[in-house]
Amino acid sequence: MNVAFLSDLLQSIAERGRGLLGRRVALPRAATDLGALCDDLLSRRGEASGVALAQEILLRWAALDRDGRRDFLLMLGRRFGADRGRLAAAIIAYETDPSDATVLDLHRAAEPRRQEIIRRLAMAPDGIAALVGMRADLLGLLREAPELAALDADFAHLFASWFNRGFLVLRRIDWATPASVLEKIIRYEAVHEIQSWDELRRRLAPGDRRLYAFFHPQLVDEPLIFVEVALTDELPAGIQPVLSESRAPLAAEKATTAVFYSISNAQAGLRGISFGNFLIKQVVEDLRRELPSLTDFFTLSPVPGFAGWLARERRADAPVHLTAEDVQALAALDEAGWQEDPAAAEQVRKALLPAAAYYLLHAKRPNGMPEDAVARFHLGNGASLDRINFLGDPSANGLRQAHGIMVNYCYSLDRIEANHEAYFERKQVAAAPAVRRLLRRRVEPRELVPANNEGPKTRRMAVGQRGEGGS
Amino acid sequence: MNVAFLSDLLQSIAERGRGLLGRRVALPRAATDLGALCDDLLSRRGEASGVALAQEILLRWAALDRDGRRDFLLMLGRRFGADRGRLAAAIIAYETDPSDATVLDLHRAAEPRRQEIIRRLAMAPDGIAALVGMRADLLGLLREAPELAALDADFAHLFASWFNRGFLVLRRIDWATPASVLEKIIRYEAVHEIQSWDELRRRLAPGDRRLYAFFHPQLVDEPLIFVEVALTDELPAGIQPVLSESRAPLAAEKATTAVFYSISNAQAGLRGISFGNFLIKQVVEDLRRELPSLTDFFTLSPVPGFAGWLARERRADAPVHLTAEDVQALAALDEAGWQEDPAAAEQVRKALLPAAAYYLLHAKRPNGMPEDAVARFHLGNGASLDRINFLGDPSANGLRQAHGIMVNYCYSLDRIEANHEAYFERKQVAAAPAVRRLLRRRVEPRELVPANNEGPKTRRMAVGQRGEGGS
Amino acid sequence: MNVAFLSDLLQSIAERGRGLLGRRVALPRAATDLGALCDDLLSRRGEASGVALAQEILLRWAALDRDGRRDFLLMLGRRFGADRGRLAAAIIAYETDPSDATVLDLHRAAEPRRQEIIRRLAMAPDGIAALVGMRADLLGLLREAPELAALDADFAHLFASWFNRGFLVLRRIDWATPASVLEKIIRYEAVHEIQSWDELRRRLAPGDRRLYAFFHPQLVDEPLIFVEVALTDELPAGIQPVLSESRAPLAAEKATTAVFYSISNAQAGLRGISFGNFLIKQVVEDLRRELPSLTDFFTLSPVPGFAGWLARERRADAPVHLTAEDVQALAALDEAGWQEDPAAAEQVRKALLPAAAYYLLHAKRPNGMPEDAVARFHLGNGASLDRINFLGDPSANGLRQAHGIMVNYCYSLDRIEANHEAYFERKQVAAAPAVRRLLRRRVEPRELVPANNEGPKTRRMAVGQRGEGGS
Amino acid sequence: MNVAFLSDLLQSIAERGRGLLGRRVALPRAATDLGALCDDLLSRRGEASGVALAQEILLRWAALDRDGRRDFLLMLGRRFGADRGRLAAAIIAYETDPSDATVLDLHRAAEPRRQEIIRRLAMAPDGIAALVGMRADLLGLLREAPELAALDADFAHLFASWFNRGFLVLRRIDWATPASVLEKIIRYEAVHEIQSWDELRRRLAPGDRRLYAFFHPQLVDEPLIFVEVALTDELPAGIQPVLSESRAPLAAEKATTAVFYSISNAQAGLRGISFGNFLIKQVVEDLRRELPSLTDFFTLSPVPGFAGWLARERRADAPVHLTAEDVQALAALDEAGWQEDPAAAEQVRKALLPAAAYYLLHAKRPNGMPEDAVARFHLGNGASLDRINFLGDPSANGLRQAHGIMVNYCYSLDRIEANHEAYFERKQVAAAPAVRRLLRRRVEPRELVPANNEGPKTRRMAVGQRGEGGS
Repeated sequence: MNVAFLSDLLQSIAERGRGLLGRRVALPRAATDLGALCDDLLSRRGEASGVALAQEILLRWAALDRDGRRDFLLMLGRRFGADRGRLAAAIIAYETDPSDATVLDLHRAAEPRRQEIIRRLAMAPDGIAALVGMRADLLGLLREAPELAALDADFAHLFASWFNRGFLVLRRIDWATPASVLEKIIRYEAVHEIQSWDELRRRLAPGDRRLYAFFHPQLVDEPLIFVEVALTDELPAGIQPVLSESRAPLAAEKATTAVFYSISNAQAGLRGISFGNFLIKQVVEDLRRELPSLTDFFTLSPVPGFAGWLARERRADAPVHLTAEDVQALAALDEAGWQEDPAAAEQVRKALLPAAAYYLLHAKRPNGMPEDAVARFHLGNGASLDRINFLGDPSANGLRQAHGIMVNYCYSLDRIEANHEAYFERKQVAAAPAVRRLLRRRVEPRELVPANNEGPKTRRMAVGQRGEGGS
Repeated sequence: MNVAFLSDLLQSIAERGRGLLGRRVALPRAATDLGALCDDLLSRRGEASGVALAQEILLRWAALDRDGRRDFLLMLGRRFGADRGRLAAAIIAYETDPSDATVLDLHRAAEPRRQEIIRRLAMAPDGIAALVGMRADLLGLLREAPELAALDADFAHLFASWFNRGFLVLRRIDWATPASVLEKIIRYEAVHEIQSWDELRRRLAPGDRRLYAFFHPQLVDEPLIFVEVALTDELPAGIQPVLSESRAPLAAEKATTAVFYSISNAQAGLRGISFGNFLIKQVVEDLRRELPSLTDFFTLSPVPGFAGWLARERRADAPVHLTAEDVQALAALDEAGWQEDPAAAEQVRKALLPAAAYYLLHAKRPNGMPEDAVARFHLGNGASLDRINFLGDPSANGLRQAHGIMVNYCYSLDRIEANHEAYFERKQVAAAPAVRRLLRRRVEPRELVPANNEGPKTRRMAVGQRGEGGS
Repeated sequence: MNVAFLSDLLQSIAERGRGLLGRRVALPRAATDLGALCDDLLSRRGEASGVALAQEILLRWAALDRDGRRDFLLMLGRRFGADRGRLAAAIIAYETDPSDATVLDLHRAAEPRRQEIIRRLAMAPDGIAALVGMRADLLGLLREAPELAALDADFAHLFASWFNRGFLVLRRIDWATPASVLEKIIRYEAVHEIQSWDELRRRLAPGDRRLYAFFHPQLVDEPLIFVEVALTDELPAGIQPVLSESRAPLAAEKATTAVFYSISNAQAGLRGISFGNFLIKQVVEDLRRELPSLTDFFTLSPVPGFAGWLARERRADAPVHLTAEDVQALAALDEAGWQEDPAAAEQVRKALLPAAAYYLLHAKRPNGMPEDAVARFHLGNGASLDRINFLGDPSANGLRQAHGIMVNYCYSLDRIEANHEAYFERKQVAAAPAVRRLLRRRVEPRELVPANNEGPKTRRMAVGQRGEGGS
Repeated sequence: MNVAFLSDLLQSIAERGRGLLGRRVALPRAATDLGALCDDLLSRRGEASGVALAQEILLRWAALDRDGRRDFLLMLGRRFGADRGRLAAAIIAYETDPSDATVLDLHRAAEPRRQEIIRRLAMAPDGIAALVGMRADLLGLLREAPELAALDADFAHLFASWFNRGFLVLRRIDWATPASVLEKIIRYEAVHEIQSWDELRRRLAPGDRRLYAFFHPQLVDEPLIFVEVALTDELPAGIQPVLSESRAPLAAEKATTAVFYSISNAQAGLRGISFGNFLIKQVVEDLRRELPSLTDFFTLSPVPGFAGWLARERRADAPVHLTAEDVQALAALDEAGWQEDPAAAEQVRKALLPAAAYYLLHAKRPNGMPEDAVARFHLGNGASLDRINFLGDPSANGLRQAHGIMVNYCYSLDRIEANHEAYFERKQVAAAPAVRRLLRRRVEPRELVPANNEGPKTRRMAVGQRGEGGS
């Protein structure tokens, strides 16, 4: 209804961001050390002058060095836990009379006072941004100071509420986006590095390329997470044709397939707050609306854990799934440049694809979930494993992490929910038959679950076809 | 840095608001009743299809009638409390090993599952707005269904976090503001009714008039709370000169005094989430920055509880603070039109001002806080009671609620904090000497606390001056 | 590509408009009278300090009273005509050697120097707006100072260039438009007066109501011309159902017909610069794109000259087209309230509709163009006369100007061009058969030209149908 | 007043620009060749369907190759000149009765009909942008088809009106500007090439760097002209410290001097339409307002014609201003790398600076204006020549065009007007005494004109120094 008015509103936020409105507010009383200021923040004084106190604390925080920050965070963790006396009383009250009111009181008594500190710090101008930065520091200190885990849980709890999907805004990033945002895309791209502004332009500007990001109103020009999309008329089996400088762009209206070929988290301080799931689904919906000709939604994904796992298997005395011939064939991997020798490559291919299929379908962590992190992400979202591509990424990085293997996961909106449930409830991996056929039937039948995307697609794959996974 | 980009960002929010992006998402599986949908929302299904489920529930809610809504809210309250079994186990674990980890687990176990329902409903397009509306309905049902108080506490807890000061945006409302926002100002003005668009224009457009509101990015064109300000060169003793149609506007640069003459909450569903405190302080800061000539910040406020209290006092057998002469003098109040008869008015004045001073300084609720709601608000913010104005509001409404009495509270940034503390810690009411003198020394000295705004100001009040009505 | 950046750009214009950037520039040298300043403006000094000089002149102009303004305009007209000596030389040069170069020189020599004055005044901040205001004053003085016509021609020439269609921006005005623009809509509405903000809201806010205006980037929040549109499912025969407070809105997607029921010029200073033609066509195109279900585009128009013309005819000794019975029947018009008496109204109707048809089809000005100004506008745009509505506007104003008659003109994009040509080349009035049939065949056949919108439509009107024009 | 509303307005322009609103309008009648379409455009048809016709012509133009474009422009020039018969009649009428009316008629009759063609083409969506491109093509063809000069004059006349200073918008370009605009800055920078995005960032992002451009509302994201500014605390004598990667930025509030070190026209099609004059003055005004500490405004400019002129002088039999010693000393210039040999450089310096002073002060074109194009620009704007810097630009390009010489021109707002007048009226070059002193008294006294910037500045020059230069 009211776009222009809102634009102005956001402008106020942006101006605050650039300091026009966010000048340091005079603090009425002389401030002492940071711990005392935090005490104040929770006290009467905090009620009266919370914004100024919060700003003061955050400004002092910003001036601390690494040790100062660690000490501050440790102090927060130690000093502002739950009030144990109050908690003991609340437990007694609850056990005496287990009512809604005593539960609520117990809930409140068990809340670490750190959470209220964090809430009040958020009141400062740009407070949310500062807190996201603070947690990034905390995560970097977690190894040396594991007792910060409790404070981290407080951050995570509040961030999950503040960065609720309902607060996120999806924005398309294109060549008309401010350079100050674009340079962050270059910096944060984590999957296929962007080498230059020209390369960035090739990923943004052509009609068959898209980049979408989630933003949050309080983190003005900071993307939270972004996904790069290629619109194509066939499912690419490797990353090179997607990123090629010389490719001819396709008219967007002619595209049938959207390929999500890179997804990157941009904010270290929001680790564990899940956006990717929402991002991909929202982009699928938006693209379907904008371009009705799009019918297929796939990823083109790396398999980051494969090479490490395979190395362990090859070294094993009795590898579960590798035959002696496989082991012999895979020895070629140890020769640099094998992929450029057709005979060597063909030999590798025959052994590598079944190994990759086994890895993706059956290699599990102790909790029963897939070994591969990218697989966990997409399968957990309800996608299915659609195809395994031999030499999909022959770059040095691609060879190092997965001997060049890349994978397509399929996002089919009407199967996502069932896949998701089967994955979490029964630990089932949804996969296309062609992928399963790669296994050469060495896996026990009971482990084989029907993939959820096996309708028309199955029929497209002719009976008798050799199952080399579409490569 | 990046205003324009953000404007576009907000536009996405606004477009979502007007339905361009917020179309009903197809729900994968057939939905059943609302309770089952809420179960789903908390389940695996909710993880996979949360946005669609949340939207579905909110759309169904919107279609319910009053009874349907009450039943839904009661169902939420009953069905989604804390898991008592899990809570019992968490208590035992905590008592066995009272660590950060067991406290956290206890905190989580004590959280009513309703809160997670509310968080997930917020993921729907315009979910926050819908939830604010839902709580407005809940508050309207609280009398007939007091058991909803527990659910209300959940809403209040989450709203306090989502409507954190750090998320609010202060916006000046003026004559260039969209009519769709302005009509809400007309509708929500709660203190001095706005009769027409012409009157609204008089409160917005002149250079010596301001209207500021807090907005929240998720409630696109809905003001949360707003304050109306007159810029003047003297402190007005009544509302009529402020609202007069025929007054000559003052050049803003010549103003010395900002008068907050009306402050209205606009969102019933946000009752109890405190913004007014922040709003006034932010406006004081912004005005000081924009117009350095402004040195004094006052309210011109009603005294809504005075007439009721006085009626009780006059009927009392032995009124604490009214002399027999006072009671006799105040009998004139029972004659309609007394205020237009100079002699009667003068007689009333002599008794009424001391009574008002007593009411504001000493009439207390059982918890020791002032009887008057407006006094509680401003004194709680750290303002001080500066002047009591006889016939400050001679309108029918002004006479009915306070026999025409109006009050100026003073916002002095460097005293706010101390006033606030004295008020909450020691229940002290900060007041100017002139106000105290109105009492004619009938109050015990120990009740008299020095007002916090007694520096230079005191000296301006000459010794021996008669203190009636703030001189 | 670049919406947000442009928004910022416009903001610069807007800020200039509100004086942030448009402060008076210090003028280097002492200024003398306005005539001397205009001399300076055309001189070397004007090249160096044109912006400051232009601003100075416009500020002084703004301070002049009516007489001062008249004198200034007369001075401009007299003092800054073409340089006659240079012109004479250019004529000789041209006649000696009639080349492109000598023509160009002649063209330049014949240009009144006033035009360069106006161009340089336009360089001042908000110069264009000031010049539009200046011409509005000029037009108001034209009767008493007809010699200003030459200066007016200069304004008109430059405005036609600056307000070229290519510079105009079509904007929908709705309830989210700033009040400062909306109050201008109320003020400038010239056809069906808007009585209150509530009435304005009824014309803007419902889904089946639209208001579009042309804006110019240099006249920031000033609409140039606007049109009000009702979306309906049948062609309305009168204004009352369109403006009725109690009507039920129609879902826009169900509308088949767009009715332009009011079109108003907003800027007196742009008289004669034609926008209406472009406005209607653009709105037709935009509506067709937005709402494909819309197939018919009509006006609902007044007939402002009809009552005056009819009065003259009725008084004539031998009215050309009125029979004696007609004259007798029309006598009822002299009785106030005739329209509320069914019998009287029916008697009037039979004589009034043929008279209106004759007036619209055959009453002509000396130059052969229609007598009626609204008819000239729409027919000149290429619309055709589609229907004459008895008692289409029974308001006091409607009765006064046209005895309640209203007319529908039809905008059919594929006939506009041919209609326009026939109208200007051959003075033909495009009209539907039903309108012509109202004439009762008293007009000579050679005057009857086929209407251009007589294809399928004609067939829809069954043979033998009584031709009362849809009333 | 109304920023947000205007933003939306501009958005409409921008959307038109990206084709959302600018789709090809169906053209009612079959179109024939381009000449016939232009005839139509001027005819009745053009009145009715001008926008569609104009769009059709521009789309066909866009599809033409170089030859087709030349033929089209030649056709326009030949076919749409002034109507000679009408012109002859207008001359007779004027000579019979030389009134305002007959002058106006003569003016109109002498107008080439090409101008009306251009005006009507401007009505198409993005018509102005297309016309600017058309003129760029025309200018490229002017050498081979000099008869296009007449058509070019028509373009220039209309562009001067449409790109009136009053229509231009000054915008600061910074790192938050869209990449699509920034890449144009990289492309159009004509003075000191921008090699990479990193270099662009160094010119935009630091607090002591500014880039301003003029934009026009009809050429959405196309800068017309832009200037790069360094804020410094002393006047730089060379370009290297300004562009150095390793320099430490200065806080903008501490800067005293604004240095315009590059100014580039971006639109070939607007050649001859003067913006630079306005741009520099506007930027000076805006910077003074924003940063009151700025007191001095200088350029750091190249001397593009110096090396060519000096080569001719050195080759001359009897150079006017070079002594035999000078010629000998300057022979070192022919040795590559002379500038890196301190002795050689010193020898060159002694002869080169006087030669440069002579070139800038006394080398003239036949019309009496300075030989150097950059000097003509700044002196014509009213700036004065302040300092000549030896080896100000030791880059290959700087050595090639001016043996490394760079110049500072001074923009002093209170002398601009007088300098401008002296320059154009009396062909005087305003220069600082120090520059004149470089001449060593070889110039005749009558050529010496007083510099206009000789007040306090002169005194800053140490006592004892003889002030011959320009006194």
